[in-house]
Amino acid sequence: MSHNSFGHLFRVTTWGESHGPAIGGVVDGCPPRLPLAEADIQPFLDRRRPGASKFVTQRQEPDQVRILSGVFEGLTTGTPISLLIENQDQRSKDYGEIRDRFRPGHADLAYELKYGIRDHRGGGRSSARETAMRVAAGAVARRVLGPGVTIRGALVAMGGDAVDRADWDWSAVDENAFFCPDRAAAARWEEQLLALRRSGSSVGAVIEVVAEGLPPGLGAPVYGKLDADIAAALMSINAVKGVEIGDGFAAAALTGERNADEMRMRDGRVEFQSNHAGGVLGGISTGQPVVARFAVKPTSSILTPRASVDRFGEEVEVLTKGRHDPCVGIRAVPVGEAMLACVLADHLLRHRAQNPDAPEVARLPRN
Amino acid sequence: MSHNSFGHLFRVTTWGESHGPAIGGVVDGCPPRLPLAEADIQPFLDRRRPGASKFVTQRQEPDQVRILSGVFEGLTTGTPISLLIENQDQRSKDYGEIRDRFRPGHADLAYELKYGIRDHRGGGRSSARETAMRVAAGAVARRVLGPGVTIRGALVAMGGDAVDRADWDWSAVDENAFFCPDRAAAARWEEQLLALRRSGSSVGAVIEVVAEGLPPGLGAPVYGKLDADIAAALMSINAVKGVEIGDGFAAAALTGERNADEMRMRDGRVEFQSNHAGGVLGGISTGQPVVARFAVKPTSSILTPRASVDRFGEEVEVLTKGRHDPCVGIRAVPVGEAMLACVLADHLLRHRAQNPDAPEVARLPRN
Amino acid sequence: MSHNSFGHLFRVTTWGESHGPAIGGVVDGCPPRLPLAEADIQPFLDRRRPGASKFVTQRQEPDQVRILSGVFEGLTTGTPISLLIENQDQRSKDYGEIRDRFRPGHADLAYELKYGIRDHRGGGRSSARETAMRVAAGAVARRVLGPGVTIRGALVAMGGDAVDRADWDWSAVDENAFFCPDRAAAARWEEQLLALRRSGSSVGAVIEVVAEGLPPGLGAPVYGKLDADIAAALMSINAVKGVEIGDGFAAAALTGERNADEMRMRDGRVEFQSNHAGGVLGGISTGQPVVARFAVKPTSSILTPRASVDRFGEEVEVLTKGRHDPCVGIRAVPVGEAMLACVLADHLLRHRAQNPDAPEVARLPRN
Amino acid sequence: MSHNSFGHLFRVTTWGESHGPAIGGVVDGCPPRLPLAEADIQPFLDRRRPGASKFVTQRQEPDQVRILSGVFEGLTTGTPISLLIENQDQRSKDYGEIRDRFRPGHADLAYELKYGIRDHRGGGRSSARETAMRVAAGAVARRVLGPGVTIRGALVAMGGDAVDRADWDWSAVDENAFFCPDRAAAARWEEQLLALRRSGSSVGAVIEVVAEGLPPGLGAPVYGKLDADIAAALMSINAVKGVEIGDGFAAAALTGERNADEMRMRDGRVEFQSNHAGGVLGGISTGQPVVARFAVKPTSSILTPRASVDRFGEEVEVLTKGRHDPCVGIRAVPVGEAMLACVLADHLLRHRAQNPDAPEVARLPRN
Repeated sequence: MSHNSFGHLFRVTTWGESHGPAIGGVVDGCPPRLPLAEADIQPFLDRRRPGASKFVTQRQEPDQVRILSGVFEGLTTGTPISLLIENQDQRSKDYGEIRDRFRPGHADLAYELKYGIRDHRGGGRSSARETAMRVAAGAVARRVLGPGVTIRGALVAMGGDAVDRADWDWSAVDENAFFCPDRAAAARWEEQLLALRRSGSSVGAVIEVVAEGLPPGLGAPVYGKLDADIAAALMSINAVKGVEIGDGFAAAALTGERNADEMRMRDGRVEFQSNHAGGVLGGISTGQPVVARFAVKPTSSILTPRASVDRFGEEVEVLTKGRHDPCVGIRAVPVGEAMLACVLADHLLRHRAQNPDAPEVARLPRN
Repeated sequence: MSHNSFGHLFRVTTWGESHGPAIGGVVDGCPPRLPLAEADIQPFLDRRRPGASKFVTQRQEPDQVRILSGVFEGLTTGTPISLLIENQDQRSKDYGEIRDRFRPGHADLAYELKYGIRDHRGGGRSSARETAMRVAAGAVARRVLGPGVTIRGALVAMGGDAVDRADWDWSAVDENAFFCPDRAAAARWEEQLLALRRSGSSVGAVIEVVAEGLPPGLGAPVYGKLDADIAAALMSINAVKGVEIGDGFAAAALTGERNADEMRMRDGRVEFQSNHAGGVLGGISTGQPVVARFAVKPTSSILTPRASVDRFGEEVEVLTKGRHDPCVGIRAVPVGEAMLACVLADHLLRHRAQNPDAPEVARLPRN
Repeated sequence: MSHNSFGHLFRVTTWGESHGPAIGGVVDGCPPRLPLAEADIQPFLDRRRPGASKFVTQRQEPDQVRILSGVFEGLTTGTPISLLIENQDQRSKDYGEIRDRFRPGHADLAYELKYGIRDHRGGGRSSARETAMRVAAGAVARRVLGPGVTIRGALVAMGGDAVDRADWDWSAVDENAFFCPDRAAAARWEEQLLALRRSGSSVGAVIEVVAEGLPPGLGAPVYGKLDADIAAALMSINAVKGVEIGDGFAAAALTGERNADEMRMRDGRVEFQSNHAGGVLGGISTGQPVVARFAVKPTSSILTPRASVDRFGEEVEVLTKGRHDPCVGIRAVPVGEAMLACVLADHLLRHRAQNPDAPEVARLPRN
Repeated sequence: MSHNSFGHLFRVTTWGESHGPAIGGVVDGCPPRLPLAEADIQPFLDRRRPGASKFVTQRQEPDQVRILSGVFEGLTTGTPISLLIENQDQRSKDYGEIRDRFRPGHADLAYELKYGIRDHRGGGRSSARETAMRVAAGAVARRVLGPGVTIRGALVAMGGDAVDRADWDWSAVDENAFFCPDRAAAARWEEQLLALRRSGSSVGAVIEVVAEGLPPGLGAPVYGKLDADIAAALMSINAVKGVEIGDGFAAAALTGERNADEMRMRDGRVEFQSNHAGGVLGGISTGQPVVARFAVKPTSSILTPRASVDRFGEEVEVLTKGRHDPCVGIRAVPVGEAMLACVLADHLLRHRAQNPDAPEVARLPRN
């Protein structure tokens, strides 16, 4: 991926720092004549918004998105869509003490070594605030994919405590503050996170994102694999340290017999008996649901002092008092959905460029 | 990543099918005046070569690489380096029965649905044979990184049986057929794999790759993150289903205190007390070793019949009798090293384009 | 070039329509720690600004640029620089009559056929207003190139009446409304253009842009040629129909003897006796001034009715009453300079990525 | 454009030096199931082949192309197409004397300053031999465009002597050694070129390329303009110094009234009364023929000694005795056609990715 852009045909570029006047993004390559308004994007931003519950950062940002170009009389025009959110609650004074000190686990030191300069306020460009633009772009991507494609996400583990898949209920996801599909797990997490928050600590999480209703054929054989692009997209989210497709790491412990997704025909279409592959074979979608998971490390901003250094090469102790998410993985759920949507929209356009007559379902014989 | 290319400045394009006349690759953007000969590339290919032990496919391919351009009098010229390996042992008749049948877990069906045509012989473009070119390109990338950077890989788990990190010995890696750093594990695996091979089954594996001696500063803030590009590169390897950086999925179970890599100064340089981050913070290398792992699913070619379908939409049973790797993860070790080397070489060039005066070590104050 | 972006390492993306709320751009890949403020960009915008003289469109736009990201305490940070100009004088009613009618020579019909929708107000995305962002990006590019590189442009012909090169005086360029280096020609053009303006007609022009002080080595051998990228960059400016490097089309009438730029040594550097090549040989800069010219067609918006058609396939007569430039070539001068600056900045970064030890002057022996 | 690649979806990468073992190219992104064989490519190569007449270099190269991948049972598979031509007549000894000397007008010096190394034999990578691969890729591009699109080229001026457009006859183009559409001009040129060849001199030329039968809608609004990409593609051909679309530089001398291509309707389609625009408005094709011209400078290899310098910074005289084209513009005709075909194929794929329901002709109302 490029510095601050990704995608080939559906291409997203973002800009902005945590405490600058605004953050924004440009979505280029969107097909024309799709209905699009700010009201189509805002609900997704509201799901990711800081200050929405006691389990996320208390920074107050309405995150009202404005569309500045690329839409005319309610329809996309095929020209670049500029999205902008003004920053409101930039309490810079909170960050004075980390101007010269590098917080362990943060991007601070890496930026300093690379650039020799950084906007330290709120993490500057490395702030999770940037992910608002991913979510906005994802809302546009959903328009490109159309109503037949559903993309959903859920938190499936927090701090080592996983959901019970037997109790998975998508309708539970929007009923708790964790995007948790298992009501019992959500109840446990609530207690755990309140305790963590009181102690100024933090914890990691695992998120699962699923796309259903996709046509087969998205992806490309070798380097342009659908799952390779999904991996990059999810790994590019702040604090992500691992990405899986389908069975993921668990597949490494399986035999070939167990791992094979057997196939039968139903109504002229291929029907798989299982989905170990996560909807992708040889880098190309099969028409099954695309299933990916990613691991988010615990927020590095904690109240316990940690050994560190400063810009001048002096040894210091650092603790972070600002407003932070005790589990940044929670707000990563809508971000993961959005990144998956963007990658799929891009590959949909790439696929139909090369294969305009490919079938929309796994029909055999093909044509 | 593009269809059959990856990298921005150090850019690799490959071509070729398993049973075509040859496979090849083009490495574009390599800096000039680096010593390079076929003998610099061949040893890496020999490590990946089929037929090298009883635990890998018995296809006999000498995999002799030829450099067709971009090198003059023993030095790179800055122009594209064309690499070519002629295919020798294309026993096409083995594959006649899978011409019209889709092997479960293989790319066969996905290719058919996407393109409506495929070279079925040996998997065509989806064959692991393509990875020989990744290894060759990786050898060139090592030249770009220079002798101060070491890139090594090892098999760390096979079929759920992991190495004991307390017994890790890099020198063991080249002493067994598994690239296993733990001699006791290697002995166990030998027995397990012989049994699997006899039964015509297969098993998955986990590979770890490590780069040491890197400068800090490789990567870019948001989408061009070093770890995002590593994730895509490793996920693009055949049969890979998961990728991790540093602690990876385990980080999701940690608290912020545990996950923080504390820092001290030594001789004017930052010294980390741990490496949970895997050498990357905020998408940018810190100068610590870059550590990545990836999971390889079991080979889909097995002797046990599996329910499947054919091109005409008929239900069939499929078993695969050709020559295959019972654990394709073994030969993925040199491939993973090569992909890591290519990504690092690309980011090294990108970094010095933007930051020509950045330090080569984690020195503070920076300059 | 991509839809709305260009450049590889110094990458510019623009967005916005003529009568939308704002236009903007994102400059990604800029090196860090370069001094940059709005005041560094504004003077270039002021040169291109509409309403500045009676020879350009009378639309009143202050074109005040705001930097929304990528600059901290007066220095670039290496993160994307977002530039924004709010539109002020969007007199949409002027354009009501061209909502459904295609102006001959305009992009109207082409947009309609491609997208099936367009923001017709003021030309929407195809408006020359977009070029303000090119000029702003060019100001950033000049920072990247540094004070040793000078980029200047001039109008060298208007409506077939060319300057006399014997009377070329760079200091004249800013003394007249035409960026004309020949005072006598400027006086002639003033009369001609007043007459044209009265008659509601328009006329074409030729612009020359020159970059001095460049290092040798910018460019790449085959497709990444410096002059190929300059050609694309200049041809992408609205209304441009031709591009030349050095002697350009005149070179086609020369013999090899005449065309050869002979070389001598002076003070350890190569000194050329002429510059037919325009500073580029084999796609790579030689250290001589880079000289390019481009032809701008006459503005298509004229008062004389022309035969045309409308969206419904009806034949109509079209004349354009809005505010327009009688010679759009005039304001193309700062735009051409800016595009040249952006291409050179991009190639400077690309060159030093691959060749960090290349000399900054045409020194022999090289090193 | 990238170093040695161009195109976004139909992407061409070439490699190889004049006197290396082979030259080659990779065409990635070609749609599947197009009939393609070596015999479809060879006729285009034969038109460009050296040694074909007394007016081109006498190097004897059969230029037999081999397809090494991407085609199965006579059809493209959607995977990369590898093309290879072995070099036969590498008379390296001819070039011994230019090992250390820079030929004026050649890429020699620029390569030395950039890379500090070059394969001097026959110009190495900067040799016009590379253009064989452009021609081969162009033959594949024609398959993508389909039989409804015709791409032709002609030499329209040699050394300042232009064809008479009133006598233009496409059938004459293949009857003379110059690809000249005007039989009288061809007769004149034959005499002129024989004289030039005897004197060891050379001369420049202008080539016109025309694409007919294109759909409207190819291109993109701002930077991805069809004509911008054509300009880059043609300017990237060796020795090209200028590019025009439609009226080109002549448009700069026109008034808006003269330049406007008026439109009428015929049978539900837009019919233009003229084609000053060269088939492109606002960067997007209108369905009219796309017309481009490019200027080729005289071959720099001449027998008259010219003042130059050598690698060591010594002043020398250089004359070139090797086998060269007295008018390299002649063989540029098939190369120009090929580059136009490649750009159009790429834009066709890009267009249908974003606008799958756009009409194939300039029909109004659109849909």
